Amino acid sequence: MPPFNAHVDRLAPPAVPAVQAWAREYRDGLGPLIDMSQAVPGYPPHPDMLRFLAEEAGSTRNTGYGDIEGEPALRTAYAADSARLYRAQIGAENVHITSGCNQAFVVSALAVAGPGDAVLAVNPVYFNHESTLRMLGIRVATVDGRAADGFLPSVEAIEKALTPDVRAVALVSPNNPTGAVYPPDLLKAIFELCRREKRWLILDETYRDFLPDGGQPPHGLFAKADWEQNLIGLYSFSKSFCIPGHRLGAITAGTALVAQVAKIMDNLQICAPRAAQAALARAIPILDDWRQANRVTIQSRTAVLKAVIAQCPGWEIDAIGAYFAYIRHPLEGLDSIAVSERLAKEAGVVTIPGGFFGPGQERHLRFAFANAVEETISLLPDRLRAV
Amino acid sequence: MPPFNAHVDRLAPPAVPAVQAWAREYRDGLGPLIDMSQAVPGYPPHPDMLRFLAEEAGSTRNTGYGDIEGEPALRTAYAADSARLYRAQIGAENVHITSGCNQAFVVSALAVAGPGDAVLAVNPVYFNHESTLRMLGIRVATVDGRAADGFLPSVEAIEKALTPDVRAVALVSPNNPTGAVYPPDLLKAIFELCRREKRWLILDETYRDFLPDGGQPPHGLFAKADWEQNLIGLYSFSKSFCIPGHRLGAITAGTALVAQVAKIMDNLQICAPRAAQAALARAIPILDDWRQANRVTIQSRTAVLKAVIAQCPGWEIDAIGAYFAYIRHPLEGLDSIAVSERLAKEAGVVTIPGGFFGPGQERHLRFAFANAVEETISLLPDRLRAV
Ligand SMILES: Cc1ncc(COP(=O)(O)O)c(C=O)c1O
Ligand SMILES: Cc1ncc(COP(=O)(O)O)c(C=O)c1O
Repeated sequence: MPPFNAHVDRLAPPAVPAVQAWAREYRDGLGPLIDMSQAVPGYPPHPDMLRFLAEEAGSTRNTGYGDIEGEPALRTAYAADSARLYRAQIGAENVHITSGCNQAFVVSALAVAGPGDAVLAVNPVYFNHESTLRMLGIRVATVDGRAADGFLPSVEAIEKALTPDVRAVALVSPNNPTGAVYPPDLLKAIFELCRREKRWLILDETYRDFLPDGGQPPHGLFAKADWEQNLIGLYSFSKSFCIPGHRLGAITAGTALVAQVAKIMDNLQICAPRAAQAALARAIPILDDWRQANRVTIQSRTAVLKAVIAQCPGWEIDAIGAYFAYIRHPLEGLDSIAVSERLAKEAGVVTIPGGFFGPGQERHLRFAFANAVEETISLLPDRLRAV
Repeated sequence: MPPFNAHVDRLAPPAVPAVQAWAREYRDGLGPLIDMSQAVPGYPPHPDMLRFLAEEAGSTRNTGYGDIEGEPALRTAYAADSARLYRAQIGAENVHITSGCNQAFVVSALAVAGPGDAVLAVNPVYFNHESTLRMLGIRVATVDGRAADGFLPSVEAIEKALTPDVRAVALVSPNNPTGAVYPPDLLKAIFELCRREKRWLILDETYRDFLPDGGQPPHGLFAKADWEQNLIGLYSFSKSFCIPGHRLGAITAGTALVAQVAKIMDNLQICAPRAAQAALARAIPILDDWRQANRVTIQSRTAVLKAVIAQCPGWEIDAIGAYFAYIRHPLEGLDSIAVSERLAKEAGVVTIPGGFFGPGQERHLRFAFANAVEETISLLPDRLRAV
């Protein structure tokens, strides 16, 4: 067989299927499987969303190729939604629709960095960000987010890590895997550093609709007059609208960046799937209350998880945010992969090992607790005790 | 503003929007616009296809994340369809579903070639193949397909071009832009050369369902016992099922290649859109007669186009195949871009200039004639005369 691309060959197999393979060995001894591996909403989409999806998919309006940058109606609806949230000037021309937020990251990274360049990320790193950069031959530079600092990086550490080959800083807030929410002041300081040092700031806000403080802008970056110069915002419709299977995400950026992304997207995808875009354009203006209610539901799960883990001797929540808790396990001799594997196989609790997110994460497991109803979360003490 | 990735910055803006911008300047003087730019079926999907799309999109079955490699039902249905067509052993495990065939090419190329490697293509080259390779930092090596040889490359020319950095040979049959159909013997010889020289053969058969000879396998490569060693077949559901807006394509390859592609797809897309996959899995087994009928319809358009162009002094069909005609224009002093622009703006006929497909193509225009009904094709002589 001829060789594979070494950058791809070196990558580990995808993380979620790996842990789900462990889960298939669980024999139900302690009750039903509790899957807190992948971040998927535990409730269905709104009935209107499903109705719109069906109507648009059944229509010949959406069977042809669409605009590369996205359906004009969706770009407009999402721009308006973002402009309101961030209290900022964001127009349809600033929005590029993608087939999910992973794709939004791939095309953003590729727009600003090529082989031999580097992108700076914060360790622990969302694994798809890391593997995306590696597969493209882009070096992954990292600074540590330390447990003692709520897994936030310091501006000084980032500044020191900005070697000349670093083309962009990539942040995730609320964070995956830790759940850490970056305070507006920290984001401002990192943004200004990037501006001064002529680097792009790629900010993945997949979980922003699950921040505790619903009415408040998550940060003030888009409200700055010249945000278009070097800010790239990423968003996912998967979690907020409960439609990961329909694959839609968005990039918010200056028009010059959008034009670069369009060239990449034309190669990669031509356009994101159209029927779901048309459905979302109708759903965004009318599902605000429903999104707010989900935010409240997930917030209450945070409180339940805290209370439940407090009953588990040796287990500690080191960080918790919109969708994830990053929990320290008590099994000192074992690394996170062994613990996560035992938890899945023996106790039917599926998590992602900290080790999948970078070095030094052996003591942590990521729990996507927002997936589960409160009764399910309450089953954890018995299960954790079993390993 | 910080710099962009030079590999992306250097790319020309997407081709189809560029020619469609010319078309918007047409003032309707000679009658309705005739759009033969993008290859899009001119007839709607089958009503059952639309019904399945609506049913599946409206169902909560398809809202969650799906298997990276594709829905098992679609992989199975497509494998069976391919096994029958090629009279070959092709199983679900050989199929990776992608979000369109452009994406199938991106992930296949990236699976086997990285920055500094090369992929060999035939000039004229389908522009998205070329721009995909360039954006990834992969060198595009070319051999010429010459008009005198029906735009087919010679095996000797390919052999000579196989420098050590060439990781794969990429072919398109039936060809875009020329329409040329690669004879089974030529494909066999190129495949055997690739096998001997340890290179991958990537064969894009987006238009295979529109070959004149419906019942016959397009070639015997998949029927060889060890095809999995270095053959990568690409397919698009866009044209055959009239659903480009739903974004689905497929890769057929050995399981080792499929595993590499899954790592890339996890980063790029997580999974292709699920509802449309579920719909297609239901449609493939029952729409065979409908696909056959479309093949016949498009075949009859070939005959009409030939008769029509014969009435246009100076215009010559240099190649014609499943979906495209590659036509020589009579305007000796002008290059293809100028001719295509005038044709769009002054005569309302939208084509793609040969120059978009590589050097030496200045005398040609690509007509995606399969888009148009026969009455529309018959309007061409008046229009061509106008420029
Ligand atoms: C931080 C982050 N970015 C992006 C994604 C991908 O989301 P999408 O489904 O929109 O591709 C995820 C999904 O888990 C995520 O956690
Ligand atoms: C040769 C070739 N490959 C791939 C594609 C892309 O098709 P899809 O819509 O499946 O991405 C096209 C579309 O025009 C094509 O002509």
